[in-house]
Amino acid sequence: MAGVKKANRKDLLVMRLAEGAAVAGIFTRNRFCAAPVLLARKHLKNDVRALVVNTGNANAGTGADGVKRAMEVCKALAGRMGCEAWQVLPFSTGVIMEPLPSERICAAVPVALNVKSDWLSAAEAIMTTDTLPKAFSTKARLAKGEASVTGIAKGAGMIRPDMATMLGFVATDAGIDARKLQALVKRAAERSFNAITVDGDTSTNDSFIVIATGQGPAASSQKDLASLEVAITDVSQRLAQAIIRDGEGATKFVTVRVERGRSEAECRKVAYAIAHSPLVKTAFFASDPNLGRILAAVGYAGVALNTEKIDLHIDDVLVAKNGGRNPAFQEADAVAAMKKPEFTVRVVLNRGKAAATVWTCDFSFDYVKINAEYRT
Amino acid sequence: MAGVKKANRKDLLVMRLAEGAAVAGIFTRNRFCAAPVLLARKHLKNDVRALVVNTGNANAGTGADGVKRAMEVCKALAGRMGCEAWQVLPFSTGVIMEPLPSERICAAVPVALNVKSDWLSAAEAIMTTDTLPKAFSTKARLAKGEASVTGIAKGAGMIRPDMATMLGFVATDAGIDARKLQALVKRAAERSFNAITVDGDTSTNDSFIVIATGQGPAASSQKDLASLEVAITDVSQRLAQAIIRDGEGATKFVTVRVERGRSEAECRKVAYAIAHSPLVKTAFFASDPNLGRILAAVGYAGVALNTEKIDLHIDDVLVAKNGGRNPAFQEADAVAAMKKPEFTVRVVLNRGKAAATVWTCDFSFDYVKINAEYRT
Repeated sequence: MAGVKKANRKDLLVMRLAEGAAVAGIFTRNRFCAAPVLLARKHLKNDVRALVVNTGNANAGTGADGVKRAMEVCKALAGRMGCEAWQVLPFSTGVIMEPLPSERICAAVPVALNVKSDWLSAAEAIMTTDTLPKAFSTKARLAKGEASVTGIAKGAGMIRPDMATMLGFVATDAGIDARKLQALVKRAAERSFNAITVDGDTSTNDSFIVIATGQGPAASSQKDLASLEVAITDVSQRLAQAIIRDGEGATKFVTVRVERGRSEAECRKVAYAIAHSPLVKTAFFASDPNLGRILAAVGYAGVALNTEKIDLHIDDVLVAKNGGRNPAFQEADAVAAMKKPEFTVRVVLNRGKAAATVWTCDFSFDYVKINAEYRT
Repeated sequence: MAGVKKANRKDLLVMRLAEGAAVAGIFTRNRFCAAPVLLARKHLKNDVRALVVNTGNANAGTGADGVKRAMEVCKALAGRMGCEAWQVLPFSTGVIMEPLPSERICAAVPVALNVKSDWLSAAEAIMTTDTLPKAFSTKARLAKGEASVTGIAKGAGMIRPDMATMLGFVATDAGIDARKLQALVKRAAERSFNAITVDGDTSTNDSFIVIATGQGPAASSQKDLASLEVAITDVSQRLAQAIIRDGEGATKFVTVRVERGRSEAECRKVAYAIAHSPLVKTAFFASDPNLGRILAAVGYAGVALNTEKIDLHIDDVLVAKNGGRNPAFQEADAVAAMKKPEFTVRVVLNRGKAAATVWTCDFSFDYVKINAEYRT
């Protein structure tokens, strides 16, 4: 406990890596990316020995001083561990545009380093406005034995104002070449953390890191790599979905699936247009199968669609057929589907073979309340 | 009164044009554009003699049958006027994906045609969920005399679920060549109806039409054309701003001005990223000068900015300087500015000479309430 923002609150986590571990990462594309993101992206190229995560302060929009302070934290940890500062990846999450209290964090590093943490308490340590810790684990069956894949994440999906950050860490004991790991992580991110949205606001601190310690079986064959990718993608998806479920204000968990497009990219465009539309999201909240809103979002997604070919389903209910209302459609059926806490909106473009899935939530009174009234 | 949706409600407007009037228009870019939009876009190429507008039903997402029904209305009016159906521009606004009650509308055409309407009652006739009629007038001083420019519009800014439509009609008695008028209208739209946003949802029916009857002085010289453009842009801007002010749920009218960019396009991108961010809009509602949210939106606008050069002002308060918090910034000053019903967010990119302005509103409890609870 470094007392970054509040006293007596877990706000510092140190993860030490076994020597020779491969580390790969994906970072926010926001131009105002945080100081720790700048450093972590740079240090990722080195032989990484540790990760350090603080909550309560994002160290974003803090300029050169922010980078200096993040580096001080790296130095303090490296000094204790007998490695170099550039072998440490720093992460911060919390309020934007306030100076990082690096002195307090540096002072707390020795204690944090000695905490014997299991994954669940690690997940708790990186929580900010999350209501639940997020940790999942699975196994990958490799030729030389079973590798474990475990991950933790934090994030209330950018719903919370100043805690506009998502962090995800997944570790495996499998052995894998760092370059192969980076390619794998990019694909896993596309299907997990980059396939969720609460409000379309891209944060300044988003980071997703995968560590492969190599203490377990090596993933050497193509088949091994594929198994590992499935396991890492699975854990990442469950973490990403947990972020959406935990979004305060969210009362519904909605899967938006767009099928039979010409490319995955155009399917994602359409899915995001639906998932970002405030009109659609308030309709989700109200369990109102408001056809016009969903089709209008499809129509302005920026894809040159033939609208007369489009079908729309809510779960098993065929709502629109060939771009128009399905004559057999009964509104009550769609209302019943949408009243459930989880449902799927499925749009079939009928112009190709690609598909994409995005997970999102509804837009409720609490979303406005949280974002208008609270500054944590 | 055609009783399209509700009895005893003005829901039909016919505008007869003087012979030889030039007509130009801009329509929605939504792929699911409404049947009347398809026809109006086509008929615009002809010698237009009349416009017919119904409220209560958008005739959107209605396929071939929708086009047939819109054409029936054109025919009914043309028959009464002694012109051809393709000389009539039809417009509809209201619920999406329900069949247009064209029989009722056709039956009401003779009465609507005989109503001697002034501009204000015309503005009232096209209201749907608008709380106020929107009509503005100005004069353009041309070489051969003064031309009048008057416009009406409807729209609660796409805040209202099924009434997701904006219609704007501006008329002048000036004489102007139809091709020159079309170019002028495009520029005026960019600076008015295409520079407003409530929630980023592009409707299926948006139409903006300018009529130049030629009954008054001709705009012949470059200077005349410039004067006329200023007057038409002025009326269009006031109509567009009135739509934002009337958005139910809106408690603040916010001007987002982005300056010193490399191109107008990149300035608009940044301005829209701010104006569309639910996090920024809820901060507007709360009068919370939440720096991080605005800068984060600038950062994800998709422009390759150097964030260290960016300044942010709220009215006269310099909030951020060189991409970081202005050391002299006092939060109370920004709160005071944001508590006003109207204020300006000004972002200076410091990388060029272009600028752009967008008008928007905040995101309130009532936005969610209206869109979740009501289906008008």
